[in-house]
Amino acid sequence: MTEMTEMTRNTEKLHVPLGGRSYDILIRPGGLDELPVVAASYAPVGEAIALICDETVWELYGRRVSSALRGAGMAFECIPVPPGEGSKRLDQLARIYNGLAGMGLGRNGLIVALGGGVTGDLAGFAAATWMRGVSLVQVPTTLLAQVDSSVGGKTAIDIDAGKNLVGAFHQPKAVLIDPQLIETLPARERAAGMSEVIKYGAIASETLFAQLESRRVPVDPAVLPGNPNAAPADPAGVSGDSADIICACCRIKRDVVAEDEFDAGRRMILNFGHTFGHAIEAKYGYGRFNHGEAVAGGMRIAAGIGEILGVTARGTARRLSDLLSRYGLDAREDADDLIPIVRRDKKATGRDVKLVLLKGIGEAVVERLEYPVVEAALRALRDRGGDDASRDPDERGRKP
Amino acid sequence: MTEMTEMTRNTEKLHVPLGGRSYDILIRPGGLDELPVVAASYAPVGEAIALICDETVWELYGRRVSSALRGAGMAFECIPVPPGEGSKRLDQLARIYNGLAGMGLGRNGLIVALGGGVTGDLAGFAAATWMRGVSLVQVPTTLLAQVDSSVGGKTAIDIDAGKNLVGAFHQPKAVLIDPQLIETLPARERAAGMSEVIKYGAIASETLFAQLESRRVPVDPAVLPGNPNAAPADPAGVSGDSADIICACCRIKRDVVAEDEFDAGRRMILNFGHTFGHAIEAKYGYGRFNHGEAVAGGMRIAAGIGEILGVTARGTARRLSDLLSRYGLDAREDADDLIPIVRRDKKATGRDVKLVLLKGIGEAVVERLEYPVVEAALRALRDRGGDDASRDPDERGRKP
Repeated sequence: MTEMTEMTRNTEKLHVPLGGRSYDILIRPGGLDELPVVAASYAPVGEAIALICDETVWELYGRRVSSALRGAGMAFECIPVPPGEGSKRLDQLARIYNGLAGMGLGRNGLIVALGGGVTGDLAGFAAATWMRGVSLVQVPTTLLAQVDSSVGGKTAIDIDAGKNLVGAFHQPKAVLIDPQLIETLPARERAAGMSEVIKYGAIASETLFAQLESRRVPVDPAVLPGNPNAAPADPAGVSGDSADIICACCRIKRDVVAEDEFDAGRRMILNFGHTFGHAIEAKYGYGRFNHGEAVAGGMRIAAGIGEILGVTARGTARRLSDLLSRYGLDAREDADDLIPIVRRDKKATGRDVKLVLLKGIGEAVVERLEYPVVEAALRALRDRGGDDASRDPDERGRKP
Repeated sequence: MTEMTEMTRNTEKLHVPLGGRSYDILIRPGGLDELPVVAASYAPVGEAIALICDETVWELYGRRVSSALRGAGMAFECIPVPPGEGSKRLDQLARIYNGLAGMGLGRNGLIVALGGGVTGDLAGFAAATWMRGVSLVQVPTTLLAQVDSSVGGKTAIDIDAGKNLVGAFHQPKAVLIDPQLIETLPARERAAGMSEVIKYGAIASETLFAQLESRRVPVDPAVLPGNPNAAPADPAGVSGDSADIICACCRIKRDVVAEDEFDAGRRMILNFGHTFGHAIEAKYGYGRFNHGEAVAGGMRIAAGIGEILGVTARGTARRLSDLLSRYGLDAREDADDLIPIVRRDKKATGRDVKLVLLKGIGEAVVERLEYPVVEAALRALRDRGGDDASRDPDERGRKP
């Protein structure tokens, strides 16, 4: 009975109001077993169901998902996707199209994306473009995908020239989030997801931010980039309040997306840390840092230059940096060599770039800044010793 | 002065009311020279303009378009597309994406599609998916594209498994139609365009249909499939009332699209002749008949089985067939071997297929028919000698 009460408490349904494209985000510990019920709502009897699934996820959960669907009398075919960002490309997309054609998935068919952000983006883009759009259910299996990429309808693939350059807006019919799935995530991936969680607190909720500060640190601080297989220090700590935290993030994202579905204004704040984050990823060829780690580095830079430009309240950058470090997100970048890469960003024009800056913890603003201004701020940030711009320059020289 | 009056008379602006996605269709003889003005409306100063252009069209009109744009001080880059349906594929799409990346076309950039249906579909899909959607201006250069594919926002590419299986709805910002461009079309392509023109009359306007019946036949009836290079018999006859006819077709398409942008109902009537047309194309591997010729064959079949099923007024199939023949569209198909191909159609389910049938000239209805019914009707049509179902069976045996 206690378990049931606990589950009920953790079960949330968030409605995303987008007119004819509205849908629900279902956050349910153990919710993976509800996939047949959710899928049945969006696949008429007799229509094909394609499960586009990360191979690693399939190894872990394939048997469970298969038997749940078969037990409900639902036929489906699985199209596996190799793990990693390298799968978000045209050749994998072509393979998926051929798979959908082979199984005869028609206009009323359903695509289920089961995996992390790569699978969701790739399967989502396939759903957006197959027969000019078919139904999609997102079942995100990583913390990063649960709090970010599975909600909001952005789908994309990469080309040689850059990440996410090709894509479509295609809202899912439902997002089914099972917070228990993150227990099997490698600790480094879980930490990467925390980077986006911290982002939500930083841009929109000081309450969430403070909750994360006072939380028992669930990841061994020794779990740093370069140590991807380290075991989590406290698995229970991850799942304990994770449903609440995921729900808080999804609620923020839902509110932003409802206000600006097509990324014409307000939605931009979700990119806090991402302009420099993408530049950090691009600088290292997407190999050294994963997305969350790069975004953590990008948030440090954005908070730092926000203070230098007088937009961000002093002390904000240090508070953000400390919280990121608590979750093992310690990547710091020499930022002043990122400008040439930033100039190629989607949000850049020939002369300037739109950057998301913080006013303080819990409040973000979008500023259009010319490159010389950004460059000067980055140099000043470097001279002050990284994100620690809040410390008095005179103080920095002193020994403790 | 007479010329000016004539031009004014032929100049039309049709508004397509689609809320935030509304746009105008500009039908202007000589309108190609207005491309700089139209493009300038949708490409902010300093933003990149990509001209995705059929290579044959570029040979004919490239110099004129280039000097018009350069004369207006507009920078652009041309991405050539080899002519023919073979270009509507993922490899050409990848080439276009790389071209857009190379020229740094950002979210506020503009793509201009200059060519026939293949170029419009391919460039339109690129515009739909580049950075999740950028502005698009359609400049259709074939009669078929002017009356059909450039209006309504359907974009698509082909994969091995079938035509148009991958695509997106992406409305253009404007459609610029220059009826004079069809003067340089090969006669066979012009006839193919007439197939869609006749379709509009058949499904929605007996007035247009009668106008086409009473019109001086502009194409040498000897211009048949297999004689693709035959010269037009009467070039003047093509351009004389062609702007009016194009305008009539665009008005019908506009009304249908405004009512059903995403092809959920009414828009289906535009597919009259297409289900069997696609089957005819597929049967011959897209080589023997072009799209318009195949649709002509498909319309004959659809009108014929409509009469057999008692949906279509008797005499309709013969009247339609006679008009098609006047424009050199004489392809007839043994229809009863098309069923296996029809079963793979996008509009097909496991048990039945939605077919557009005529009630009479100028009125279409959509009927969901089970395969055995369609098969029986096709056999009956074959036994009655093709589309000539309107003739009394007893009469058919008599010698003249």
